[in-house]
Amino acid sequence: MILPDAAFLHRLADLADAETMPRYRTDIAVDTKVKEGYSFDPVTEADREAEVAIRAEIGAHFPGHAILGEEFGLTGSGRVRWVLDPVDGTRPFICGLPVWGTLIGLTLDGRAELGMMSQPFTRERFWADRDGAWTERDGVRRPLATRDVGSLDRAILHTTSPEHFGDDLAPGFARFKAAVRMIRYGGECYAMAMIAAGRIDLAIEPSLQPYDIVALIPIIERAGGVVTRLDGGRAEEGGAVLVAATPALHAEALRILG
Amino acid sequence: MILPDAAFLHRLADLADAETMPRYRTDIAVDTKVKEGYSFDPVTEADREAEVAIRAEIGAHFPGHAILGEEFGLTGSGRVRWVLDPVDGTRPFICGLPVWGTLIGLTLDGRAELGMMSQPFTRERFWADRDGAWTERDGVRRPLATRDVGSLDRAILHTTSPEHFGDDLAPGFARFKAAVRMIRYGGECYAMAMIAAGRIDLAIEPSLQPYDIVALIPIIERAGGVVTRLDGGRAEEGGAVLVAATPALHAEALRILG
Repeated sequence: MILPDAAFLHRLADLADAETMPRYRTDIAVDTKVKEGYSFDPVTEADREAEVAIRAEIGAHFPGHAILGEEFGLTGSGRVRWVLDPVDGTRPFICGLPVWGTLIGLTLDGRAELGMMSQPFTRERFWADRDGAWTERDGVRRPLATRDVGSLDRAILHTTSPEHFGDDLAPGFARFKAAVRMIRYGGECYAMAMIAAGRIDLAIEPSLQPYDIVALIPIIERAGGVVTRLDGGRAEEGGAVLVAATPALHAEALRILG
Repeated sequence: MILPDAAFLHRLADLADAETMPRYRTDIAVDTKVKEGYSFDPVTEADREAEVAIRAEIGAHFPGHAILGEEFGLTGSGRVRWVLDPVDGTRPFICGLPVWGTLIGLTLDGRAELGMMSQPFTRERFWADRDGAWTERDGVRRPLATRDVGSLDRAILHTTSPEHFGDDLAPGFARFKAAVRMIRYGGECYAMAMIAAGRIDLAIEPSLQPYDIVALIPIIERAGGVVTRLDGGRAEEGGAVLVAATPALHAEALRILG
């Protein structure tokens, strides 16, 4: 099975950027819809138009590939499936905070193999291809690598919002917070990229959709990190997800979470 | 009293950027010190070197001005006082999240008159001079203006961390959160700039130092917003601070907070 190359991932990101950036920090209509666990979920024109553009390009070059997108659901079937969140972090997007991103992932037989995150305001890309995990800004490309701080009490933990933890996860989250050096909120996918870049050590997100995480899995894994559900299984289907910079930190975090 | 002009504020920001940017996302020694209400407060080389550079430039041009800086305390005395936080948001700085900023404020007789926030990774400036409040990126300068969403239930509220609220403020914060449309965490000074830019409507920070807020006061006020302590007084001395995009929203928020 020949998978798309990094150049194609960048082409899709370029198309998405052309739809998201002109709408960032402008006054556009904001829809709201209610999804489980969220009291507010804005969906912007940027989200819809970027997904339309990405889908058209995939369809033109890989008509046999299935596509799962946040805005338009699942189309097609087969071994290869693209998984798209055109604006991951619609809340920071509408707040003007540059920690949102366009997520473009690809699974083969259900396993995440390629991933792209584009943050067009900071002009950054983070991606994983068959050769590894990379970041680029201002024309400078560097490999991504997680860091090893050694133990939980030296680790920085990220989660997007304390409000996302239900009664089942709240006690474990409280223990987790108490065990780490520092907790940081509000980073969305950008914080996941910073785990791959060796700046943050752990992330916990209690209720992700597949399109929130699939693109990030190969980026974090090929940088040296670990991404699983809280039950230890693969995270491609979303759910409660734990990300760690190293296998040892991941094991220590799972123990604390119980 | 002739105050420094915007060009001088930009020169100070340039000097700070030259110290902060080369150290952002690099592995430098991180000190920790304990301050009230914070369990973790990293102080970086960037912080110290940027303050040294700003102080030298002020000293060369305005030797009679007092300077209060986060790193080196208060020097000098008189009607004019600079108030500096060379890296506001040391936590996002070490996490690689571009919501930190260099804050350079000036008070005349205790009242904030000039302010500059520089975010060199996103290449943005937000400042207030005698003519108004402004932002600039990529050579494009625009006036800053808050927005008017009309009422709390349509407003976006920001606070940096839910852990900063002690028992005295927690009940009011819970009511405040319940009254707004959306709560957003982890934005530090960048979220304050987004209030001035009309993207966020409210912010509450339970324990600010003068250098955390002085530079932001004229930026927000001249964009149309209101900055006070929770007791309604001026916020130049820090403390528990409420920021609102409009006077009506500010009054409504103070009522909810009790």
